[in-house]
Amino acid sequence: MSAPTQSAPPAGGTAPTAPQPPRTDAAANTQSTFLAACRGQPVSHTPIWVMRQAGRYLPEYRELRAKVDFESLTRKAELAAEVTLQPLRRFDLDAAILFSDIMTPLQGMGIDLHFDPGPVVRNPIRTDAQIDALPALRPARDLPFVLDSIKLIRPELPRGAPLIGFAGGPFTLLCYLVSGKPSKEFGVARSFLYAQPESAERLLDHLGDAMAAYLGAQAAAGAQALMMFESWAGLLAPREFNRFALRAVRRTMAKLREQTDVPLIYYVNQGSALMQSVADLDVDVIGVDWRSPLSECARILGPNKSLQGNLDPAALFAAPGELKRSAEIVLQEGRAARGHIFNLGHGIWPETSPDAVARLVDYVHESSSR
Amino acid sequence: MSAPTQSAPPAGGTAPTAPQPPRTDAAANTQSTFLAACRGQPVSHTPIWVMRQAGRYLPEYRELRAKVDFESLTRKAELAAEVTLQPLRRFDLDAAILFSDIMTPLQGMGIDLHFDPGPVVRNPIRTDAQIDALPALRPARDLPFVLDSIKLIRPELPRGAPLIGFAGGPFTLLCYLVSGKPSKEFGVARSFLYAQPESAERLLDHLGDAMAAYLGAQAAAGAQALMMFESWAGLLAPREFNRFALRAVRRTMAKLREQTDVPLIYYVNQGSALMQSVADLDVDVIGVDWRSPLSECARILGPNKSLQGNLDPAALFAAPGELKRSAEIVLQEGRAARGHIFNLGHGIWPETSPDAVARLVDYVHESSSR
Repeated sequence: MSAPTQSAPPAGGTAPTAPQPPRTDAAANTQSTFLAACRGQPVSHTPIWVMRQAGRYLPEYRELRAKVDFESLTRKAELAAEVTLQPLRRFDLDAAILFSDIMTPLQGMGIDLHFDPGPVVRNPIRTDAQIDALPALRPARDLPFVLDSIKLIRPELPRGAPLIGFAGGPFTLLCYLVSGKPSKEFGVARSFLYAQPESAERLLDHLGDAMAAYLGAQAAAGAQALMMFESWAGLLAPREFNRFALRAVRRTMAKLREQTDVPLIYYVNQGSALMQSVADLDVDVIGVDWRSPLSECARILGPNKSLQGNLDPAALFAAPGELKRSAEIVLQEGRAARGHIFNLGHGIWPETSPDAVARLVDYVHESSSR
Repeated sequence: MSAPTQSAPPAGGTAPTAPQPPRTDAAANTQSTFLAACRGQPVSHTPIWVMRQAGRYLPEYRELRAKVDFESLTRKAELAAEVTLQPLRRFDLDAAILFSDIMTPLQGMGIDLHFDPGPVVRNPIRTDAQIDALPALRPARDLPFVLDSIKLIRPELPRGAPLIGFAGGPFTLLCYLVSGKPSKEFGVARSFLYAQPESAERLLDHLGDAMAAYLGAQAAAGAQALMMFESWAGLLAPREFNRFALRAVRRTMAKLREQTDVPLIYYVNQGSALMQSVADLDVDVIGVDWRSPLSECARILGPNKSLQGNLDPAALFAAPGELKRSAEIVLQEGRAARGHIFNLGHGIWPETSPDAVARLVDYVHESSSR
């Protein structure tokens, strides 16, 4: 359904404490259940993190956010680092994810947009002239604060919790750029695909290349895995998904494989009908929303993909016993996959109790290490 | 994604013309490709109608709507009849669908709601006391204008175009009643299922029984097929869909089968992961959104169900040649089903050109009768 653009965790009130010597990547890899599960290697327990784990459900995030607007949180390296680290201080999570927004690199490309609260693009992009005028993204020049943030976060991470960098999928970014504002149906963007298919492909290529540069720079700065959020994948039937969204992602992932060997994750929101389409995409992990049983996804994806997901965010509102039962079903379903990273099937809701998150993290660790 | 509540066609500017003698049901059945396809019987061409076919994309609807508010259109039998008939005058459609709203019977039950423009419920229903206080629906007393409208429409229908009555699915109605207003995620309703599962079941039973009475009365008044719109099915994972939505629909459909032998249609919006769940539901037709290829649905549903759908509403914005190619793919996919009724996969968008609809209707008829 919906796709939050603020797809990552925020960090809290105080500045990072005294830096510790960074571990080497090799050490981090051997210690991380998250990275092992991404690659289908044996793990001591099922790793867990939570999409939007540093979001508005955390009092310490809301406290910081009361003082600083959302955009500043994403654009100041120290604040983004703090927000990223907040949930890691509170919960025994197996990964951190950079606090940022999928629209941030588009701002870096010079596109005039603001948040109200979703992203609003002043001049929606609908012509070839506009597409051809888009500059290439040069992350070190255009988004230095993101790369600085990664460098601040890495030494502060608890043992065994790697940092995930991320970007929006090209089609998801197209939805916002063409429609100009969030929308339930993104009708303007979807009719653009049918009415101007060549223009759509041209825009997707440009966005995909920009995201390859952006994610590659995140890995070079220290991100230990890279995730692409295709939040609006589920707007497309398989034929249009293949022609537009998947074609662009293939190209992006191929460029990334040339730059880095960190695990690559593709989150296909509302992708029940799209598993066959992504089965031969060159990524390590497919992220799955709560609607598709993981065992069915694993059957279609085969033995070359790990899975990430997919508890219904609504399950965190259940009584503790029912929450455990729901989590246990996800764990059992996940055993069908080559590797399984426990997560929600979508971003955590702002109304969620942090106590429920604590119970979930502990239960997943306990149950999967028995 | 979204589910319009105004799930049916409106009619235009002038009153129905001089009545003609109604055909008998038997005659209508033998002449209707729509009814034959519902039952998996041979047809001379693939029948087509369009969800929201009498909606805002029609100038004659907008003209009427400029003079009369939406709610009055649904509550005055003559106006609802006129709106229902409008698209049948313009296009060679194979079925009409009653102009009404899925919330109309809830107003008939005394629930205080208004449209702004989506339905807003003054006192959202979240306690057992509220659920137990809901009255039973008695259609002849509570919704006489709906039944009168059906009686006005029947004699005016063109030859071979039966009238479809409809209602909202119990879970979809629950979403509005519990959340109190439309929402992208319906988080309040979804967390209600987890936090108060017994209350949810009790509410669903009540709503399902009310819809059985409502649909049964529509058939008795002259509706020749009955469709239930589960517009929000896709919010649920299969486990929750089965426990809540499907359980209630099974009960509703069983009650309907005792009252009438008209074909029953269940529209499962965003139901890619739910086909297995509905495979043994006792209905004649499953309606499918645009995301799931019909051949895959037919494979899962087996030989006892016809299919209705599922062109992407965005395809109506393509150039004529591309629209034909997209329609042809749906026709080809539909051949895998026992019977196929061509439709969009979701309601037609207000921005759609009526010319594109005319081209689509003609192409489906031409191509499928070759």
